[in-house]
Amino acid sequence: MAVVDLNFDKLGGLVPVVVQDFTSGEVLMTAFMNRQAWEETLRTRRATYWSRSRNRLWVKGETSGNFQEVKEILVDCDEDTVLLKVNQKGGAACHMGYRSCFYRRLEGDELQIIGERIFDPDEVYR
Amino acid sequence: MAVVDLNFDKLGGLVPVVVQDFTSGEVLMTAFMNRQAWEETLRTRRATYWSRSRNRLWVKGETSGNFQEVKEILVDCDEDTVLLKVNQKGGAACHMGYRSCFYRRLEGDELQIIGERIFDPDEVYR
Repeated sequence: MAVVDLNFDKLGGLVPVVVQDFTSGEVLMTAFMNRQAWEETLRTRRATYWSRSRNRLWVKGETSGNFQEVKEILVDCDEDTVLLKVNQKGGAACHMGYRSCFYRRLEGDELQIIGERIFDPDEVYR
Repeated sequence: MAVVDLNFDKLGGLVPVVVQDFTSGEVLMTAFMNRQAWEETLRTRRATYWSRSRNRLWVKGETSGNFQEVKEILVDCDEDTVLLKVNQKGGAACHMGYRSCFYRRLEGDELQIIGERIFDPDEVYR
């Protein structure tokens, strides 16, 4: 039972979550939590989200082994968004094998890859 | 007209936006953009969002003067989330007067203020 009462109403039962590397400050990914995912994250200190595509609770890393150990939890002014500072196991948060899901920067009219690829997704998700 | 075609469909015409200080890497806030806000941001290089509470386009800083000069734009793997790296004019992104909207950290069962207050909101929003 979570003590801090987040506002899950604005987004149909979800809150957006920003995930930042605890050491470098790099933004690794964003995701969503429902109340159950929030409570599981607090209880286990492993980042747990709500997968909108699979419509179920999703412990980040359950397939790849790249769990996120939660080091700090920050809440925004409106209490409708969460910022997790994590230790990203395996060094890569993105299912594409990059450290961060934000591995592309807009330069002119094009997205240029600026991120570092840590693993080959074809080797991990078989 | 934006060249990079973001996926606005997953969230009813909106994409979440994470805003990070260009220099320090601190996460300042999150917001949402619709297609028009995205295109205005690209055109003006001033962060422009969609205000869900006011149901209109919102140039960040239009009331407080604390504009966000966009230095870098990153797009995530699914092309449904944006990361802006900005120069935050006035030094404070939060309407509560703090540098970041994430000025509170969960410690045990309580939210503890860890952020620095830059301005008094009663003085700015009159």
